[in-house]
Amino acid sequence: MIQVSQALSIITENSCKMPIRKIEVHKSLGFILAETIHSPIDMPPFRQSAMDGYAFLFSELNQFDIVSTSQAGNFSNEQIEKNQAIRIFTGAYVPDCLDTVVMQEHTERNGQSLKIIKKPNAFANVRSKGEQIKKEELVLERNTLITPAAIGFLACLGITEINIYKKPKVVIIVTGNELVKAGKKLPKGKIFESNSVMLASAFQSMGIDKIKIFKVKDDLNSTKKILKNCLSSFDVVLVSGGISVGDYDFVKEALLSNGVEELFYTINQKPGKPLFFGKKVKTLVFALPGNPASALTSFYIYVQHALKIKMGFDSVHLNQINRKITTPFENTTGKSLFLKGFYNDEFVTVLESQSSAMLNTFATANGLIYIPYDKEIVAENQEVSIIPIN
Amino acid sequence: MIQVSQALSIITENSCKMPIRKIEVHKSLGFILAETIHSPIDMPPFRQSAMDGYAFLFSELNQFDIVSTSQAGNFSNEQIEKNQAIRIFTGAYVPDCLDTVVMQEHTERNGQSLKIIKKPNAFANVRSKGEQIKKEELVLERNTLITPAAIGFLACLGITEINIYKKPKVVIIVTGNELVKAGKKLPKGKIFESNSVMLASAFQSMGIDKIKIFKVKDDLNSTKKILKNCLSSFDVVLVSGGISVGDYDFVKEALLSNGVEELFYTINQKPGKPLFFGKKVKTLVFALPGNPASALTSFYIYVQHALKIKMGFDSVHLNQINRKITTPFENTTGKSLFLKGFYNDEFVTVLESQSSAMLNTFATANGLIYIPYDKEIVAENQEVSIIPIN
Repeated sequence: MIQVSQALSIITENSCKMPIRKIEVHKSLGFILAETIHSPIDMPPFRQSAMDGYAFLFSELNQFDIVSTSQAGNFSNEQIEKNQAIRIFTGAYVPDCLDTVVMQEHTERNGQSLKIIKKPNAFANVRSKGEQIKKEELVLERNTLITPAAIGFLACLGITEINIYKKPKVVIIVTGNELVKAGKKLPKGKIFESNSVMLASAFQSMGIDKIKIFKVKDDLNSTKKILKNCLSSFDVVLVSGGISVGDYDFVKEALLSNGVEELFYTINQKPGKPLFFGKKVKTLVFALPGNPASALTSFYIYVQHALKIKMGFDSVHLNQINRKITTPFENTTGKSLFLKGFYNDEFVTVLESQSSAMLNTFATANGLIYIPYDKEIVAENQEVSIIPIN
Repeated sequence: MIQVSQALSIITENSCKMPIRKIEVHKSLGFILAETIHSPIDMPPFRQSAMDGYAFLFSELNQFDIVSTSQAGNFSNEQIEKNQAIRIFTGAYVPDCLDTVVMQEHTERNGQSLKIIKKPNAFANVRSKGEQIKKEELVLERNTLITPAAIGFLACLGITEINIYKKPKVVIIVTGNELVKAGKKLPKGKIFESNSVMLASAFQSMGIDKIKIFKVKDDLNSTKKILKNCLSSFDVVLVSGGISVGDYDFVKEALLSNGVEELFYTINQKPGKPLFFGKKVKTLVFALPGNPASALTSFYIYVQHALKIKMGFDSVHLNQINRKITTPFENTTGKSLFLKGFYNDEFVTVLESQSSAMLNTFATANGLIYIPYDKEIVAENQEVSIIPIN
């Protein structure tokens, strides 16, 4: 049996990034960039007006003839004579022989004749070529998360494809003779199966959508067979249930007999003590406890950690935040605890009913409060670590 | 011109929830529940063993004959004689005539003969029927966000369909003669169009995937025509660009001539002063400034606010958080500011380069710092409001 921190270290050591592939920028939201990108162009690509107004040469007087118009998107680099100005709009090309734009509110216009009432500084309201970014300058560092802003930034530089880390293909294998598909009649002694849809949506909430679900009876041969197929076709294999030490728990044996290397089994924690982590070639295997709240806690603490590394996230930590606890707490179990909690900007409250078998409390929690095994007394207002969920 | 807070109030007053529809539970991640749900069953549906061990009658002695086995999923409610016990596993049915389960580690077994070494309390390790939730008890309140835990909770009660608020159908209309599709050669005077993919991914990051994109030339008739079609087919219409007061800004006129009621136009803020919000029947219309960073700021502050109300979110606020600012700041503009910032658990830093024309800074920011127009001096370590992004 190992401690929580050891378990996380072992996961970090044994998880490697997914292969890289090219993707269209408009489909790249939520992926991690697998290359450093430099700008292919100057932006803006030309001297651009930052205002609706008039472009003129600063060294001249304040009275001009308006000889033409530069609208955004039109290009004309005409020769302008002395005391001539042009009407210009935001984003439009500023002819090479002019250097300053006055906003229209600071002028008086009479037909084609223009008078500047309030002269701006020299070069005012003209964005120079490459003012925002120059050709070859850094756009985004490798390992950046692709957000809407990053997509906009890449697109405005004309970039259409980038290299990202692929997302893992995952499979959920649910074991348990007691499980009945929701929607059917519930025979005596049976319960509804819920871990498959719950874990699938937990994957989805991380942006993973290649998810396969299989169900298998509590039987060694069936378990071995389904695992054999999955271990060679998926990047992450999740097994739900069958991992305790009961006479009908076949998962560990089935994994080992399929050549999965055991990296740890059982963690000194509550909930979720029986938790198997292993590896075969690059495929990671987690066997989670069957009861729903334990399975979901294990997902958020351990599976999510491994997935983030695989997807290329750089900060391979738990995304912990700290808050002051509102209720004093005693941990006499000698185990590390993950308690369902609700936090706001300053405080966190331990929610009532922490049973590992059910999801009542989980459905209203927004974080898991981590109480290390060697922390016996947690006083009111003491800072505790929280792993945000959902 | 109105202030930020007025603009948000006007949006709140004029946005209403989307219609309700039924959806399968496994497809409901990220939706808001539009009904209050009560449990159709007792959970657990029967008295269940919480341990692998032996079930017996507490009032008897410590020596038993093991007469049968109860495995999870099997049901047999046999009559047990005096001094008889059964082998039982976690989740299995506890026969009506027995009341206590001893964990296997606290017993000695010799063939079919069992001796209890450490007797548990009466009724120990037996989960009573309905212990977690009773039939007709509250499962989830109306307006709950459907998370993986909520999906698991519903599924384990056998619930397969729920009523949720639909997500809005949205359209993005991009105006601007200067815009060229990324991937093409860039003619002089033109720039790459990026707002469509940026805004589409901003919608996607809110879980909205019914998104249509149209591009239109800076021309009153084309703009009127495309708007006419969109106003009757979408829940939210977003127009990018053409909303300033330049001679080629036709969007406002095109909107009004299509019968859109103007609810506000121009906000005392930077970036994003020219921002039109209007309504036709239930369709909301936002016309955003054309420059990318202004458009995206407006999206996060105003469009997202309206979308959350439409999607059924209950707390119709900005999800603001507070942090101490690391750098003193002076606001001499008389306008409310939204500054790109990076926050951690305690502090927020204003990022360099706040230009409204480009997205460099936005791509590395994780929040927009809100400085109200009437706040001239922001001292170091003073608390400021942040709207988290991405």
